Amino acid sequence: MSDRTPIKVELRDRSYEIDVGVESLGRIGEILAPILKGKKIGLITDPVVEPLYAGRVRGSLEGAGFSVAQVLVPAGEEHKNLTELERVHEELAAARLERSSTLVALGGGVIGDMTGFAAASFLRGIDVVQVPTTLLAQVDSSIGGKTGVNIRAGKNLVGAFHQPRYVLADVETLATLPPRELRAGLAEVVKYGVILAPELFSLLEERAEAILALDREILAEVVRECAAAKARVVMEDEKEGGLRAILNFGHTLGHAVEALTEYRSFLHGEAVSIGMVFASRLSSARHGFPVADADRVAALLKRFGLPITIPGELDRGDLARAVETDKKRQADRVKFVCVEQIGKTQFELLSTEEIEETLRAT
Amino acid sequence: MSDRTPIKVELRDRSYEIDVGVESLGRIGEILAPILKGKKIGLITDPVVEPLYAGRVRGSLEGAGFSVAQVLVPAGEEHKNLTELERVHEELAAARLERSSTLVALGGGVIGDMTGFAAASFLRGIDVVQVPTTLLAQVDSSIGGKTGVNIRAGKNLVGAFHQPRYVLADVETLATLPPRELRAGLAEVVKYGVILAPELFSLLEERAEAILALDREILAEVVRECAAAKARVVMEDEKEGGLRAILNFGHTLGHAVEALTEYRSFLHGEAVSIGMVFASRLSSARHGFPVADADRVAALLKRFGLPITIPGELDRGDLARAVETDKKRQADRVKFVCVEQIGKTQFELLSTEEIEETLRAT
Repeated sequence: MSDRTPIKVELRDRSYEIDVGVESLGRIGEILAPILKGKKIGLITDPVVEPLYAGRVRGSLEGAGFSVAQVLVPAGEEHKNLTELERVHEELAAARLERSSTLVALGGGVIGDMTGFAAASFLRGIDVVQVPTTLLAQVDSSIGGKTGVNIRAGKNLVGAFHQPRYVLADVETLATLPPRELRAGLAEVVKYGVILAPELFSLLEERAEAILALDREILAEVVRECAAAKARVVMEDEKEGGLRAILNFGHTLGHAVEALTEYRSFLHGEAVSIGMVFASRLSSARHGFPVADADRVAALLKRFGLPITIPGELDRGDLARAVETDKKRQADRVKFVCVEQIGKTQFELLSTEEIEETLRAT
Repeated sequence: MSDRTPIKVELRDRSYEIDVGVESLGRIGEILAPILKGKKIGLITDPVVEPLYAGRVRGSLEGAGFSVAQVLVPAGEEHKNLTELERVHEELAAARLERSSTLVALGGGVIGDMTGFAAASFLRGIDVVQVPTTLLAQVDSSIGGKTGVNIRAGKNLVGAFHQPRYVLADVETLATLPPRELRAGLAEVVKYGVILAPELFSLLEERAEAILALDREILAEVVRECAAAKARVVMEDEKEGGLRAILNFGHTLGHAVEALTEYRSFLHGEAVSIGMVFASRLSSARHGFPVADADRVAALLKRFGLPITIPGELDRGDLARAVETDKKRQADRVKFVCVEQIGKTQFELLSTEEIEETLRAT
């Protein structure tokens, strides 16, 4: 087994560690006991994750002397909104959480984003510990402090940068993940390989079958590599002022595909997979990304069972305009992340017309 | 006229200036032009303030090259909630505000708190400029970055620390303030004198009539002294880890009085006035605060037309329990700010029983 030392995210007074392990959930109480300020915890989870892991987490926390108030949030992106947030806040207030208390987010990205924002805003900010139970959350959303909820105008338009106090990722939880969600998470894993880590990309090509078969050792290694890559980016650019934007590789079009299909046809990772193939082709056309490498990206995503083409029924003009409402726009152009070679990124600013043109040519 | 140089609040990358002046609203565009990042502004105000000052502010901003999207929030504390916040967010998104855009809060404390939190959470944080038009907002809530909204469980339980980019206080706006609101604001003015500034306290005693007559020069001097006092406290303790709690002098009981009367009988400052007299008496009983000075505090508040006694019909037990739900509690005790002498504070931790006992003795 590879190194098990927690990964350090160094951000001055907001520094924290990411512990990627196997069967670590049952030790959460002893891990957090020396770290947290107070003894009250608000455990936020959803009705899918609760029966699987909440008992183990609560038991360990209570065994370490914490008192735990559990708050359930309905599963699903459509509940990541200000109405549910308010309900969570009311429950936290009823449970008499204090400024020294901590929220623990046990679940996937929706739980992590919402709990993170609840922690950022309850009593003007309390600590949060992320305990991601999906691959997507373990390699991406639990790390880096981006929290938020959706409004009608768009996803994650309301939120905060609020770094977690600790991240505990137990790859054992991936065993209960629906296969489609595991595959969707692999899209983000491939992303790290493409934009930041050529060795990880090669490892994924070599061990694709072992990963899909949920080999724990390889899963832990992969999650660790991704978490370390994300940690490096976050340390260099905590608030998405520059570098961090490379993590949007595949996301600019991906978000538009999700929005235009009303978040019904594709999981986030599936839409990102389509977006990454588009960004790879755009990179070949404009930044000399070898076509053979763009093919490797598409082939790997396909082996992971992910969609790689834009659905024919999506109107290219609508899609271009949907891209344009993305919050990463600068004046009237949209910033795309491209790659020159695997592991090396470039930015590209495109107008709505150029996006539509490129989409029609794809 | 006294010094007009803006007061500096030094908080590293969150530093800003407070400009206290006379008839400065009409120069807001030229003042902000060199400071703000982008050219889009969301101007948040309410239907009471809008007809009085929004035109002047918009005109000046547009004259300086800004484009301004105005969003109205209904006046009144009962609208400082997450439902209104969401509506504001939707309007900001519809107006296509970007990460480089700025919100301008034109109004009293409700507008300032809500706009501050809207700015803290829109796109995970954009800049806010506070333009307070009430005395309370000019001397207190516009400075220091405490933002938030109310939930059923309590006031300001949801929010963020989000320092403004600039504070522009024009004392000319106090001329249109209902007299009762002016007097309520004077409670916070007296507070600064009692906890931090003996000279200010003496000045208030000497010039009480000129202040009530809205003498501009004395008003500007008083607002400036208060803003400078608050700035000093915020610089030492940005996130209310210690010292800043002295600003809660009179507020612990004040909040309970407001809550128990369902925010209908008293303005915030009026409840704080009652709370300050209580805290002064408690200070005499436990911290040697001269009874003669406690009498001066009560007398000055009375000259300003403020209530100084707890309404007889409020049950002391209910009041003690209402104090106990305050968010400044530590375990099962509540922290009260006391004074040893004018300008020198002490903390006192009281249990619910001790609070009730003291209330019955008052």
